[in-house]
Amino acid sequence: MTIKISIDCMGGDHGPSVTIPAAISFLQREPDAELILVGQEELLRAVLRKQKQADIARIHVRHASEVVTMDDPIEVALRRKKDSSMRVAVNLVKDGQANAAVSAGNTGALMAVSRYVLKTIPGVDRPAICTILPNQKDGPTYMLDLGANVDCEPQHLHQFALMGSAMVSAMEGKPKPSIGLLNVGEEEIKGNEVVKQTAELLHADHEKGILNFYGNVEGNDIFEGTTDIVVCDGFVGNVTLKASEGLGRFVKIVLTTEFKKGFFNKLGALIAYGAIKALSRRLNPSRYNGASLLGLRGLVFKSHGGADVYAFEWAIRRAYDAAKYDVLSRITTTMAELIPQVEALHVAERAATSTELTEQKTV
Amino acid sequence: MTIKISIDCMGGDHGPSVTIPAAISFLQREPDAELILVGQEELLRAVLRKQKQADIARIHVRHASEVVTMDDPIEVALRRKKDSSMRVAVNLVKDGQANAAVSAGNTGALMAVSRYVLKTIPGVDRPAICTILPNQKDGPTYMLDLGANVDCEPQHLHQFALMGSAMVSAMEGKPKPSIGLLNVGEEEIKGNEVVKQTAELLHADHEKGILNFYGNVEGNDIFEGTTDIVVCDGFVGNVTLKASEGLGRFVKIVLTTEFKKGFFNKLGALIAYGAIKALSRRLNPSRYNGASLLGLRGLVFKSHGGADVYAFEWAIRRAYDAAKYDVLSRITTTMAELIPQVEALHVAERAATSTELTEQKTV
Repeated sequence: MTIKISIDCMGGDHGPSVTIPAAISFLQREPDAELILVGQEELLRAVLRKQKQADIARIHVRHASEVVTMDDPIEVALRRKKDSSMRVAVNLVKDGQANAAVSAGNTGALMAVSRYVLKTIPGVDRPAICTILPNQKDGPTYMLDLGANVDCEPQHLHQFALMGSAMVSAMEGKPKPSIGLLNVGEEEIKGNEVVKQTAELLHADHEKGILNFYGNVEGNDIFEGTTDIVVCDGFVGNVTLKASEGLGRFVKIVLTTEFKKGFFNKLGALIAYGAIKALSRRLNPSRYNGASLLGLRGLVFKSHGGADVYAFEWAIRRAYDAAKYDVLSRITTTMAELIPQVEALHVAERAATSTELTEQKTV
Repeated sequence: MTIKISIDCMGGDHGPSVTIPAAISFLQREPDAELILVGQEELLRAVLRKQKQADIARIHVRHASEVVTMDDPIEVALRRKKDSSMRVAVNLVKDGQANAAVSAGNTGALMAVSRYVLKTIPGVDRPAICTILPNQKDGPTYMLDLGANVDCEPQHLHQFALMGSAMVSAMEGKPKPSIGLLNVGEEEIKGNEVVKQTAELLHADHEKGILNFYGNVEGNDIFEGTTDIVVCDGFVGNVTLKASEGLGRFVKIVLTTEFKKGFFNKLGALIAYGAIKALSRRLNPSRYNGASLLGLRGLVFKSHGGADVYAFEWAIRRAYDAAKYDVLSRITTTMAELIPQVEALHVAERAATSTELTEQKTV
């Protein structure tokens, strides 16, 4: 089956000079893929010619006259630039011409545009950003939300857990991936009210066999791989992710500096190069580039703005895999199954309240 | 001037086998220090004899019959174990017999006991946990709160900023250390309501010359050393700190594994050893061990439960420095200066409200 991915070629810090070589490299590896490159047509064709890929069969170019910049406020992206490469790429998903879209453009704009164009899946109040991080067990830890929702209620975190579970189950072929709720301690009494109430919702789902809820996890569990999925609000997720990236860069700087000033000099630098490469291979954010915007009626993937060719290709790969493993229909089904339960709960609550009222009256 | 530190020798995962050698090593380096070792007297004296330090002049032993375990609920530590080594160590600070206390015991219990025994400084609603982290600029980043307060209001974060500023000014000799407010973006429109309102309070202080408020910072800024101080609520702080520690351990594991399986084998391992040591020297949490419980009428420092001798000695060093640089009176003065302002604000608010009411009546 051919899978079509639309790519916002103008997004990110580098634009077509990164997105197009990444697209070409991806196509060479993936014979079942077709890519729709979206952006200023002349520019895109020029880059393609330069790459000697002007006539490659599985590449289509779609013109879009505008570009959402990294500094554009959400309102501008949403209301003024209706022919932006970002918007056109997402539109192609909506119209069924692409199975997924990828953009390295600004996160807030991409989320707003995607939400406006695609709408949310029934049962999802708010879409979330989900990415994978490396862990000690050599597998990925899926973490969400990473910044779309800075204030969350328990039902939002609950929905993130359900969406994450459906996604990991599809992507990793794990029928019941384990879910950890990010907290300040493992004990149930720990945490703030939102987290405690979320834990109750997740426990209830676990009892019913809907989810595999591990319980609370702490910051270190993300990289220890204690659970397949870590759920948190977007504030905590965003800060944690950026702190980890910052620490990663710091480690790289220290290693490079230390090796260079070591006794062994050139030999040290050579070995250091290997070590840093090995470290990069396992920890480098590039390999884990490509966050999904979950909860929309279409697949959209966000690449880091500063992604290089290698990293951007990973984001395309992520989108391709999500389409291939049918993540969208898995999430839609999961959320749909839950809606009657949630409604039943509401009916039960209303009934309980009215009974209480009746009882109060009788007393 | 002699500085006396009381040490809860029974706390932490290892008890006297770690705390006593650390105390001895610290005394050897610091001729102006006196240490009061608190715990089960016989046991402490036995360890001292084993260390051939039974008669060291600047060590005093104070018996305490009980021990707060790592699993003890706060209520037990607070109400049942009134003669615990932790409580006695904090009591010594209250009674003026020690300038600061150090414990590797469980954080919740230490905070509860310290708060109960010492009470908070006027102007402080809630004490906070503050630690230092390494940064790329080779200086420390002070971060608070790290878990004492999982739900914060703007005035709490505001107080954390003031306390942090007073502490860093004393410890680092910086008259106006810079303060960053941890957020999901640098722009003022970013973040949740609590953070936005906190930013307003901090901006107002900055205008008045009370604080040096840099503005919002992101997770990566912690390790980049963008500001001297990073302020956040205890939930975010705790998760971020533990995630960073987890990532640090992960890096160490990957490096060790990669070097061992490299071409160079023994030589690689040797260089790796040096590199990991260098990395440890700059990034190792041990060197940054010793978090302060800020906002109490006495200095209390918390060591990691799993600290080794080297790390625990750093916690003693931290407590010693805080006493030497008079952190307590600096914080007390700062908060006291602010109280009239806060009260004036309340008076002004009340006046404004009553004027509004009068105006409404007149209308």
